[in-house]
Amino acid sequence: MFNTLIRISYDGSNYSGFQTQANASTVQEALERALKVIYKQPVRVAGAGRTDSGVHARGQTASFQAPFHIAADNLPHALNALLPADIVVTTAEYMPENFHARFDALGKLYSYTIDRAPYPQVLKRLYSWHLPDPLNLELICQAAQLFTGTHDFRSFQTAGSSIVETTRTLHRVEPVELHADNMLTIYFEGSGFLYRMVRLITGTLIRAGKGSITLPEIQEAIEGSNPAAAGPTVPPHGLCLEKVIYDQEVLGF
Amino acid sequence: MFNTLIRISYDGSNYSGFQTQANASTVQEALERALKVIYKQPVRVAGAGRTDSGVHARGQTASFQAPFHIAADNLPHALNALLPADIVVTTAEYMPENFHARFDALGKLYSYTIDRAPYPQVLKRLYSWHLPDPLNLELICQAAQLFTGTHDFRSFQTAGSSIVETTRTLHRVEPVELHADNMLTIYFEGSGFLYRMVRLITGTLIRAGKGSITLPEIQEAIEGSNPAAAGPTVPPHGLCLEKVIYDQEVLGF
Repeated sequence: MFNTLIRISYDGSNYSGFQTQANASTVQEALERALKVIYKQPVRVAGAGRTDSGVHARGQTASFQAPFHIAADNLPHALNALLPADIVVTTAEYMPENFHARFDALGKLYSYTIDRAPYPQVLKRLYSWHLPDPLNLELICQAAQLFTGTHDFRSFQTAGSSIVETTRTLHRVEPVELHADNMLTIYFEGSGFLYRMVRLITGTLIRAGKGSITLPEIQEAIEGSNPAAAGPTVPPHGLCLEKVIYDQEVLGF
Repeated sequence: MFNTLIRISYDGSNYSGFQTQANASTVQEALERALKVIYKQPVRVAGAGRTDSGVHARGQTASFQAPFHIAADNLPHALNALLPADIVVTTAEYMPENFHARFDALGKLYSYTIDRAPYPQVLKRLYSWHLPDPLNLELICQAAQLFTGTHDFRSFQTAGSSIVETTRTLHRVEPVELHADNMLTIYFEGSGFLYRMVRLITGTLIRAGKGSITLPEIQEAIEGSNPAAAGPTVPPHGLCLEKVIYDQEVLGF
């Protein structure tokens, strides 16, 4: 078998997320359908992260065991010819046999994009959340600082999750304003993310920017003594999985 | 009657262009449907330019005679509440009674965007033409220079047009490379444009960049002695009407 790592970008608008589930159209299902055509047998892919319904990706990754060898440079082209236009494989490479896209990931980089124009920027409407309300960027940046570092993020996950260990490290929570475009993008880079964590933190940051929650209240939410101060969950279509981070020494890209 | 000028942005993917035509979904038709709800009677809009099927706009304009007065600042909001999500009215203002969105336009600015990444950038696929072929940008810039100024552009229109006067002035034909995004956008600003002129000139520029047509051959096409050197017509979804230009003294935006 040939252990293969692919990088995948997709427009999540028409998918119920990455991971296969019953009675729903998913990116994994589309990938496995294309791989089955190429390899003439079922091939199961393991994604680095399950993105939620409606969430996009520029740099999702997945690994799979290929039953025979195809030149890695030809694989994206072969897959893209079989995939729908809203899923594009951008790279492929062969990995050591014990490599796994999810278990070997050191972290992930997500972006959340907010359209601040008075009316939605129509050509960006599918990939940003329109929020014309005035926002205090200074407060958003100060609140973002509170989230960086290692914290128990149990208040920043959707209830009902079965995850027990909820401590994660965020290396970067950085709001970046693109004035010319009237866009605000918040980057989240971390060791791992709980279910809906990015969207819950973004919702909290936006409330800080509106002045409807104070920095001490956010600090309490992070410390676990005021879980109600977390959120709300912002819509999925502003979220994009930008990159899955691996040890550079094991990766070609 | 209240002569009203609106600025409209739209995702042209699902429309047969701006202008109303039989058995086709158009932006004009959607606008007139929304205006009829607001004004409770049929209102006819005159667009500044007919964009073709699949072409986008960030700054199309249209004027119409409103039967009664509504605060101009409220009009975009009222229209957007009635319009589909892929059409957004961004400004409205009242104009002198003889103003006409098309006849008073001094010119237009179009952009044509080319995605040069090896595989399509999936979140930009609806708004750019994917062309991974190597291009000589220096040659494209030199060819672009040939088109600027006043020329008889009769070779750069789709055959069958009934337009007799085919001289137009292009003030700007400027290729702009966004290296970080792997995108090439060519801006066209001019007094007016013949049918499919931007897409035919873009096709010619791309051929220059591929080295499959020489600068002297393009010069011949512009001078009319070698019409076969013009084109081909590039796909509509890379094209966007950025702005309709009016005398600043008559306009608030």
